Amino acid sequence: MALVVQKYGGTSVGDLERIANVAKRVIRTKVAGNDVVVVLSAMSGETDRLIRLALQAAGEPNPREYDSLISTGEQVTVTLLAIMLNGMGFPAKSFLGFQVRVLTDQAFNKARIMSIDTERIRDGLNKGMIAVVAGFQGVDAENNITTLGRGGSDTSAVALAAALKADVCDIYTDVDGVYTTDPNICSNARRLDRITYDEMLEMARAGAKVLQPRSVELAKKFNVPVYVKSSFSDEGGTLVTREEKDMEKEVVAGVTYDRDQAKITIVHVPDRPGVAARLFTPLSEHNIIVDMIIQNASVQGHTDLTFTVSRKDLREATRIIADVVKEVGAEKLEIDDNVAKVSIIGVGMISHSGVAARMFDTLAREGINIMMISTSEIKVSCVVEAKYTELAVTVLHDAFRSDKES
Amino acid sequence: MALVVQKYGGTSVGDLERIANVAKRVIRTKVAGNDVVVVLSAMSGETDRLIRLALQAAGEPNPREYDSLISTGEQVTVTLLAIMLNGMGFPAKSFLGFQVRVLTDQAFNKARIMSIDTERIRDGLNKGMIAVVAGFQGVDAENNITTLGRGGSDTSAVALAAALKADVCDIYTDVDGVYTTDPNICSNARRLDRITYDEMLEMARAGAKVLQPRSVELAKKFNVPVYVKSSFSDEGGTLVTREEKDMEKEVVAGVTYDRDQAKITIVHVPDRPGVAARLFTPLSEHNIIVDMIIQNASVQGHTDLTFTVSRKDLREATRIIADVVKEVGAEKLEIDDNVAKVSIIGVGMISHSGVAARMFDTLAREGINIMMISTSEIKVSCVVEAKYTELAVTVLHDAFRSDKES
Repeated sequence: MALVVQKYGGTSVGDLERIANVAKRVIRTKVAGNDVVVVLSAMSGETDRLIRLALQAAGEPNPREYDSLISTGEQVTVTLLAIMLNGMGFPAKSFLGFQVRVLTDQAFNKARIMSIDTERIRDGLNKGMIAVVAGFQGVDAENNITTLGRGGSDTSAVALAAALKADVCDIYTDVDGVYTTDPNICSNARRLDRITYDEMLEMARAGAKVLQPRSVELAKKFNVPVYVKSSFSDEGGTLVTREEKDMEKEVVAGVTYDRDQAKITIVHVPDRPGVAARLFTPLSEHNIIVDMIIQNASVQGHTDLTFTVSRKDLREATRIIADVVKEVGAEKLEIDDNVAKVSIIGVGMISHSGVAARMFDTLAREGINIMMISTSEIKVSCVVEAKYTELAVTVLHDAFRSDKES
Repeated sequence: MALVVQKYGGTSVGDLERIANVAKRVIRTKVAGNDVVVVLSAMSGETDRLIRLALQAAGEPNPREYDSLISTGEQVTVTLLAIMLNGMGFPAKSFLGFQVRVLTDQAFNKARIMSIDTERIRDGLNKGMIAVVAGFQGVDAENNITTLGRGGSDTSAVALAAALKADVCDIYTDVDGVYTTDPNICSNARRLDRITYDEMLEMARAGAKVLQPRSVELAKKFNVPVYVKSSFSDEGGTLVTREEKDMEKEVVAGVTYDRDQAKITIVHVPDRPGVAARLFTPLSEHNIIVDMIIQNASVQGHTDLTFTVSRKDLREATRIIADVVKEVGAEKLEIDDNVAKVSIIGVGMISHSGVAARMFDTLAREGINIMMISTSEIKVSCVVEAKYTELAVTVLHDAFRSDKES
C-alpha cells in the first residue's frame, strides 16, 4: 500500500462532469489499495473571475482581503469532489488551509509555506477516508488566509507529499507531460519521459508553465518523485526526479520562453559600494522578484544597471525604484515591457562547452538582437524583443533538439 | 459614540453596485462617530447556485461538505466589501466564522451558536477599523465549517450585537419594515412602527420571512433593539423591542402564512405512555423541527396523531417515522404536503377573549376547512388546504387589521 498525492489543475476540475472524471481516477487509485490525498485548484476561470471582481471593487485591492476572496475557488472544488466521493460510497473529507493547517508567512498573494500539520489528514486516512485538500491556500500565524501565487496548488501538493512522506506526487494537468518546448510554437516538440529537478526548475523559472518553480524546489529538497500526467488520458507522463546515472544525457533538455518580462534600466548610477543593495533591498521587501540583473563596466565612476521583473510588478517596482534613483544620484529610469526571455536548459551543458556561443550564433543568424544574457550551470537565457519570441524558440529548438530522440 | 451592528441581506449585496451602496451607508455611520460591525449575507441567488451544484454532485450531499461549500458565498461578499471600504480610505477587515471565532454545535445546515469570541473584532474596532463579518457561518469545536440555516445571517448579526453589547442591530433588507401581512397578497397591508419581540417571534415562526425566528429569540434574550430597515431607502423601518407601556395595544399585530408545511398522520396509534416520546425523539435527534402536534381523544385504546414539518424535511421524517410506526404497532402513515398554515398574532390577545372564535368564524364563512389548530398566548394558527392561503390571509387581515391605524 502506497500513499499517493494527486493534484488536479483548473481545467481538470472545470465543471461537474470533469470533477466526476477526477472522482473516478481517485477511486481507481483508492480501490487499488492506496491511501489517497487529493489536492485541487479552482475551476478554470474562477480565480480570474474573482480577481476581476476584486479589481472592480478597488484599483489596488487590500492584499489580505484579496487572498481571502480568491481562496474561495478551491473551497468550492474540494467540497464538490468530497460530496461526489461520499455520494459514490467512498468516505472523503475536505480540508481547507486553516483546517489542515498549512501555516505560511504573511506575504499575501505569494505566501510561502512554513509548516504543514499532517495530524488531521493522517487521522482521516487512518479511518479509510480520502483526503481532499484545497490547494493554493494557507493561513498565517494570525489565521489570516494567504495564497501561494499563481500555480500555488502545485506547491501545496508537493509540500503535502513531503510532509506526509508520500510515495509519489502526481500532478494532473491538461498536457500529458513536459515537452522539449511549447508544442503550440514548435510542431516537432516532443514529450520527455524523465527530467531532472534542476532542469525542471530552470524550465519552470524560464517560463514553462507546467509546474510552479517553488513546487520543483520543494520536490528536489525533499526528494519527492513528481509525475506530470494528463487528467484526460492514461498515456504519456513525465517523471521529474533526481539525476541518475542511466538518465539520458542530452546537452539541452528543452527550450522555454517567458513573455511575462519587463526591463528596467537605471541610467548613470554612481558606482559606489552599497548602491545595488540600496536599490534591490526595497524591492525584495515588497516581495518583488527580480529575475535577471546586469551591470555594465563602470565608466568614469558611473554605470548602467538593468534588471527584469514580472510585468505585473512593473508599476510597483518603478514606483519603489524612482524614489531610490534620486537618493543614490542616478540620472533616470528607463522601462521596457516589450521584451521576452528565451532560454535553453539542460544538465548536459555542464560537460559541453560552446553551448552558449551556439545559442547566440543561432539567434544572430535570424537577426535577433540580444538585449540581456544570463547563465547558470544548466541554463542560458537571453532577453530579446517580444516580437521575436516564436522565431527564437523555433530556431533554438531546431538547433538543439529537433534531431534528438528523447 | 455608539457601537452599531448592521446586517445586509442578499438583495442588498446582489452585485458590486449594490455593495458600493452598502459601503456608502457603512461609511456614513462610521463618519457619524460610531464603531461599525457589518454582517453580510451572500449575493442573492449565490447560495441557491451553490446548493444546486451540491445536489448535482450527489443526491444527498454530505452535510459537512455542503456547509463548507455554501459558506463561500458570504466569504465573497465580506471580502469584496472590505476591499471596497479600504479602497475608499476606510480601513476595514473581514472576519470569517473561524476567524471571529463563532463557535457552534455540530448540527450541520442548522447549527446553533454556542459562543462568540469578540476579541479580534474588538481589536479591529479599537484600531479604528470597520469589521465586516460573514453571516450564516461558524465553526464547531473541531474547526469544521457549519451554517446556521436559511436566514442565519440575521442570527449572526443579533448574536454579534449581543456578544459585543452593541447599542443597536440594524437589519437591512429589501422591504422597509415589518407589515401587518404580506403586501403582495393584501394591498391594504401596513407597516408597523414597532412590534414586540414576542409578536415578531410568533410572526417569524408562523412564516413571515423578514427575520429568522432564532434571531428574534436571541434579541429578546439579550434585549438587543433590532431595527428592520430598507437598504434602498432611508424611510420607514420597524423597531423590534420589548413590550412597553406606551406601545399600541392592537389585539392582532399581524396575519402571516407559511406554505412550507407538510402534514404527517399516524393512524391508529396504541394509546400507551411513552409512544409519543418514541415517535418524536428520533425526529429531534435528526434535527427535524416538528411544528404543530395534534392527538385526538383516544377511542378503544387507540388514537390518531398528526403533526407538521417543513416540506424539505418530509422525506426524511417519513423515513424515520415509518420504522417507528411498526415498532409501536400503529396502523399506517398518511402524508399531505398540500397544506399551508395561516396565523394571527398579537400581544393584545392575552387580554381579549373570543379572538380564536372570530378567526374560525371568518374562515368558515369562506368555506375554508380547518385541518389543524394550534394556539399560544399571542397566536392562533390554522392549517388549511394550500389553495386557500391567499383567501384566508385576505379575509383575516380584513377582519382584524384593515380598519385599524398602526
